[in-house]
Amino acid sequence: MVGAGQLARMTCQAAIGLGIGFRVLAASSTDSAALICADVTTGDYTDLPGLLAFARGCDVVTFDHEHVPGGHLAELEAAAGPAVRPGPAALRYTQDKLAMRERLRALGVPCPRYAPVTDLAGVTACAREWGWPVVLKAVTGGYDGRGVWVSGTPAEAAAVLAHPVAVFAEEHVGFEAELAALVARSPHRQAAAYPVVQTVQRDGVCREVLAPAPGLPAAVARDAQRTALELAAELEVTGLLAVELFAAGGRLLVNELAMRPHNSGHWTIEGARTSQFEQHLRAVLDLPLGDPRPTAPHVVMANIFGAGGGPGPSGPGVSPGSGVSPRASAVSPDIYSRFVHVMAADPGVKVHMYGKQVRPGRKIGHVTVLGGGPAGLRERAARAAAYLSTGNEDSE
Amino acid sequence: MVGAGQLARMTCQAAIGLGIGFRVLAASSTDSAALICADVTTGDYTDLPGLLAFARGCDVVTFDHEHVPGGHLAELEAAAGPAVRPGPAALRYTQDKLAMRERLRALGVPCPRYAPVTDLAGVTACAREWGWPVVLKAVTGGYDGRGVWVSGTPAEAAAVLAHPVAVFAEEHVGFEAELAALVARSPHRQAAAYPVVQTVQRDGVCREVLAPAPGLPAAVARDAQRTALELAAELEVTGLLAVELFAAGGRLLVNELAMRPHNSGHWTIEGARTSQFEQHLRAVLDLPLGDPRPTAPHVVMANIFGAGGGPGPSGPGVSPGSGVSPRASAVSPDIYSRFVHVMAADPGVKVHMYGKQVRPGRKIGHVTVLGGGPAGLRERAARAAAYLSTGNEDSE
Repeated sequence: MVGAGQLARMTCQAAIGLGIGFRVLAASSTDSAALICADVTTGDYTDLPGLLAFARGCDVVTFDHEHVPGGHLAELEAAAGPAVRPGPAALRYTQDKLAMRERLRALGVPCPRYAPVTDLAGVTACAREWGWPVVLKAVTGGYDGRGVWVSGTPAEAAAVLAHPVAVFAEEHVGFEAELAALVARSPHRQAAAYPVVQTVQRDGVCREVLAPAPGLPAAVARDAQRTALELAAELEVTGLLAVELFAAGGRLLVNELAMRPHNSGHWTIEGARTSQFEQHLRAVLDLPLGDPRPTAPHVVMANIFGAGGGPGPSGPGVSPGSGVSPRASAVSPDIYSRFVHVMAADPGVKVHMYGKQVRPGRKIGHVTVLGGGPAGLRERAARAAAYLSTGNEDSE
Repeated sequence: MVGAGQLARMTCQAAIGLGIGFRVLAASSTDSAALICADVTTGDYTDLPGLLAFARGCDVVTFDHEHVPGGHLAELEAAAGPAVRPGPAALRYTQDKLAMRERLRALGVPCPRYAPVTDLAGVTACAREWGWPVVLKAVTGGYDGRGVWVSGTPAEAAAVLAHPVAVFAEEHVGFEAELAALVARSPHRQAAAYPVVQTVQRDGVCREVLAPAPGLPAAVARDAQRTALELAAELEVTGLLAVELFAAGGRLLVNELAMRPHNSGHWTIEGARTSQFEQHLRAVLDLPLGDPRPTAPHVVMANIFGAGGGPGPSGPGVSPGSGVSPRASAVSPDIYSRFVHVMAADPGVKVHMYGKQVRPGRKIGHVTVLGGGPAGLRERAARAAAYLSTGNEDSE
């Protein structure tokens, strides 16, 4: 797997279960997956010889992120070596958002209105049709709210256009909810769909995932699954495809695509018979897919964010008993004492920490709770996630 | 964790989830956990300086097996370093089975009748009282049926006594079922009990685990849990305690104790809210214990054994697609083709492979299935386990 963030970390856990050899290409030895994987190559995925060397001896190469240059992917695929899954032709639509929009339009998939723009005149022309605000999106490289600017005025749009970044314009959709439809597809063209979830975002970053999406009519959920399955087939995706959607005015509009394990699917570790991480491995290895059905009527996942002000690490370790971790600092109180609090308060909460250095706002873990009814679950998940944030519980 | 077998491997997976630093002391770099753990020390646990060096920098030392010499455990505990959990005083009762029997008798816990023996006259004296066969057990070092000899005649007993191994005699219990009660206990004296399971053994080796034990009266199950909780407290166990019991004539007799994750608890990975591996970590780190309740009405685990005749490895990897693994051989067909079969036939089966070199009869993995009724589950688990055996499906 190219990339060694938390997605690779959790995929590694699934690979261990299946007894599958698993190697990561990490930018740094302190990357989330590099801390726990037994087979780590440290290197830069933009360095083609290094990428090819990393892939040598692998049967399949897959990805923790969508940032490997398209030319490198083509070279990797051309080398008489590993299968590249998903392949460059599919990955292109996660790397070039304008190409994705054009492809979706060609396929007749409902999306927000959009237009290529090169200058302020182009943006104001869009605004005349759609109204302000106008969303400006980086054509490449954006994720987790980066590369997306909601411009309320021509002056704000001009400020965005001053960046040396290619953007396009999109209408600002006043949605009722954000949904995600996660499916898997294998080279054998077997496919499996998870229940459609609601994602709760703040500042463009996912905070909570509710599975299944509360109050979503069954017909709409089926529509979302069908759209995701059709897109996976049309784009010839191998592995996972996460389709982020806006539910707006009784319609579903496709917002984003990802072809990898996705934050909206972390709930599946405990909440589905087959986790998204195992499912991704099964799909890219062309193994029969696992049962995607939920294990409980309601599941809630909440992300844990680094609070605090400094670079104080939580590190990969916790310190037990009365001991104080040498890694603890005043800025980032020892995570162990937070474990004690959270676990004592709620023995059913499932804690996942990524071992990442703490930076304010960075995702450093998640929690999952599941059970019979959604309301209490959200409160439990939010409380646990807030407490595990390395700042203090008020900061979340 | 001292030892790097499959128990350490699955504990490592749990440690990754919690973000806990985890180091194993492996006899060999090809040990099950050594293949997947990012922090491996290779060495001999009977080498005291090596053991102390391994433990340096750890907060807690715990164990994948019970073979570390008692004197070494005492030195480890005396060193101003990590906490040793469980401690030597508790572990003694898993290392010296005669001491265990004597302690249980002193505590009034029902056990099979037993007697120290040094010669054939001692064994025949037991047989006069209990009848043949008589069970001879190694005082130290036995596990998985090793170190246990069922002697039907004085000649068979004499053959056992000819080994240079200290043994004691036990009555042969004609049990209706073998049960296991798994509990966890932390230094804070918090305890948690899993549902009592039935274990199905052949040749002294666990083949299947049925959770909960089918047909077990609730009062008897509570009795077994109470016995395990009381023993954990009396013996001051920290971590897991597995109590193996015979159900015989309406009574429960304690057969064996283990103070670590246990084969009878593998079903908890999917079948309980908190897996035994996470629970062991929480207990030895003195964190609040997790919810031990089941996730489904019935869960069945079946072990996968190496069949075949040779040392052909399944190795830590599988080969995808149409590729053939370089590690495959005629003796041990590529595990990947078996994955295809098992996963296609049963998308709900959970496969766990340990990456171990195959030897006939060796445990190389396990499968878990869960659902509403126990009968179909046993059949599904047995079929999947048989197919994943590296011989052929008839060998299981």
